[in-house]
Amino acid sequence: MAPVANPRIVFVERPTSGLPVAGKHFVLDTSRTIDIENVPLNGGYLTKTLVLSPEPAMRERMRDPSVPSYTTTYTLGAPIVAFAVVVVVRSEKESVKVGEYMYGQTPWEAYTVQPYTEGRITFKPEEWAPGTFDMDSLALQVVPDPKGTYPLSTYTNIMGTPGLTAFVGMEGIIEGKEGETLFVSSGASGVGSLVIQLAKMKGMRIIASAGSDAKVEYMRSLGVDVPFNYNKESYESVLSKHGPIHTFWDNIGAEALDAALDASVAHGRFAICGTVATDNVPLEERYRLKNVFQIMKKRLTVRGFIVPDFIPQFGARFFQEVPALVAQGKLRSKETIIGEKWEDVPNGIIKMMSSGYGHAGKPVIVVGSA
Amino acid sequence: MAPVANPRIVFVERPTSGLPVAGKHFVLDTSRTIDIENVPLNGGYLTKTLVLSPEPAMRERMRDPSVPSYTTTYTLGAPIVAFAVVVVVRSEKESVKVGEYMYGQTPWEAYTVQPYTEGRITFKPEEWAPGTFDMDSLALQVVPDPKGTYPLSTYTNIMGTPGLTAFVGMEGIIEGKEGETLFVSSGASGVGSLVIQLAKMKGMRIIASAGSDAKVEYMRSLGVDVPFNYNKESYESVLSKHGPIHTFWDNIGAEALDAALDASVAHGRFAICGTVATDNVPLEERYRLKNVFQIMKKRLTVRGFIVPDFIPQFGARFFQEVPALVAQGKLRSKETIIGEKWEDVPNGIIKMMSSGYGHAGKPVIVVGSA
Repeated sequence: MAPVANPRIVFVERPTSGLPVAGKHFVLDTSRTIDIENVPLNGGYLTKTLVLSPEPAMRERMRDPSVPSYTTTYTLGAPIVAFAVVVVVRSEKESVKVGEYMYGQTPWEAYTVQPYTEGRITFKPEEWAPGTFDMDSLALQVVPDPKGTYPLSTYTNIMGTPGLTAFVGMEGIIEGKEGETLFVSSGASGVGSLVIQLAKMKGMRIIASAGSDAKVEYMRSLGVDVPFNYNKESYESVLSKHGPIHTFWDNIGAEALDAALDASVAHGRFAICGTVATDNVPLEERYRLKNVFQIMKKRLTVRGFIVPDFIPQFGARFFQEVPALVAQGKLRSKETIIGEKWEDVPNGIIKMMSSGYGHAGKPVIVVGSA
Repeated sequence: MAPVANPRIVFVERPTSGLPVAGKHFVLDTSRTIDIENVPLNGGYLTKTLVLSPEPAMRERMRDPSVPSYTTTYTLGAPIVAFAVVVVVRSEKESVKVGEYMYGQTPWEAYTVQPYTEGRITFKPEEWAPGTFDMDSLALQVVPDPKGTYPLSTYTNIMGTPGLTAFVGMEGIIEGKEGETLFVSSGASGVGSLVIQLAKMKGMRIIASAGSDAKVEYMRSLGVDVPFNYNKESYESVLSKHGPIHTFWDNIGAEALDAALDASVAHGRFAICGTVATDNVPLEERYRLKNVFQIMKKRLTVRGFIVPDFIPQFGARFFQEVPALVAQGKLRSKETIIGEKWEDVPNGIIKMMSSGYGHAGKPVIVVGSA
């Protein structure tokens, strides 16, 4: 078989602030080919990429390496590394078999000889900013063949990092108690929708926000007591009417967090999981919070986290409990396909980041089939 | 003996926002007398007030009862209830003996038949805002006679609630580790100065701020590595030069907290103990924070607290450890007398609140002697 095209998404320029530009900061590179049958594996294995999962952390990895944050940064000229579902095409590694599905961080290209090195090669731990976490350590892992029970894309959502994030944050920070009220911002997102379903199973009352009516309906279908569209009703007005809240799961920051600080009871618990409202807004133009003093007045605990912070404590239980609940139909995962070829990827990334995206369900890009 | 004057400080009007006004919101009432020898005790005891301790929580108790916060509110027309050192003059209660000293919450008047009821009588728990704590439950307790080893005013400072606050917050939130850097705002205050000394004993490096050069010198004498005057150098500039910080003890809020969010390492721990920078600023005019997103990016834990939150866990150890350290001269307590008669009290309260007060040491008003 002759070599085939091996399209990839290459990171070429760091966005300084604001939304990145597809074709400028990252581009589709179609210049490469790969000989699937003969490319040397050197004891590794060859994967074909099937489903890409654009996620907010990608924006964080595009930043200047001198700015401290929770991840390492992308390497200029190397492919973007992010979450995806892949299938094993060839293998020289005993623990990885042809035909197996894997989920985790991988370069965004059609075929990859794993373990990949390009884009990692400059990741020297000693050069990382203090406290930086190497997202690449969330590497590919074999996942069960769903055999049609659920779509492969579920691995990018409830069965993947978004689901793991929701699960460990609920256990570690929210500690949902029956009868308590939880507010979830971005409740129709992958993380938000599992937070809602887990909270519902614990008997919590739920207020949740999203940016479109379709998302509001989706949240209602998940059992949210007070779903609302923040483009139509302000966080402040809804929370003052339907609060107070005992706990807050924040994927947004800014106005949502400010309103929640005001609406919390004493000893409220806040899980700060994301800041997507301001990630693409220049620092000087970001919303400034007025209710931070309530952390003291109400003796709140406000805790930022990412998945690895809680994996040692709760990771194993996620893998024991969540797949079974999905198989039993007790947890739902909804993904929306926002692209079906490599040409769709650059704009798909922007779509995910720009929040103008109004469909319910976690956005995925399907770039191949097994 | 004929009845003697029994001056008291009466709360007469709620300040809506901004600094209260002495003579308007609370007044000195000299109309009452008391017959010390014959006043009926009804099984209680009579105390003479010696040292008053003006504290920021008093401002909180002056607010409208409909605004939720961590305390109940003062009753209009009743005396202000706050911390003081008293001596027992007569007693019909077996556990309280004449000549004993007591420290805790008491009405601010020259003589009181204890347990007092006026000013408490409308404190119905069922009417409190959710999560409100009855500060009055920090009632008078017998304290050892210092016999000249240290001044009685020490009970209002390191040996009292400020010291207890510092001790339990250090144990419960800061968990000081050797070699870590701690930033303390308002480091020359009663709370701040004990935080510094306890942190020093744990081998921490300390950055601390205060509003006058006299306070900076006092902090230096306590062993602070980087003491600074925030009126001369900005929080931002000092922390960016001498940071990063691992933990933050905040008595201030506003700019101090904002700069600390920016200067923290990943997984930093923030103990939010006070917000005196904005307590007397109308809500609309308060400083708005720009760096709250760092709670997520740096996975910080930011926790507000007041003393009772940690008493069950750490209260007993405070009473075991701190008095002994004071007696051994290993902990220092510094108080500054800002008034020596009842006429000085209304302005003394304002002085404490207005932060223009530039002397080092916890402000106290000595209104009587044993």
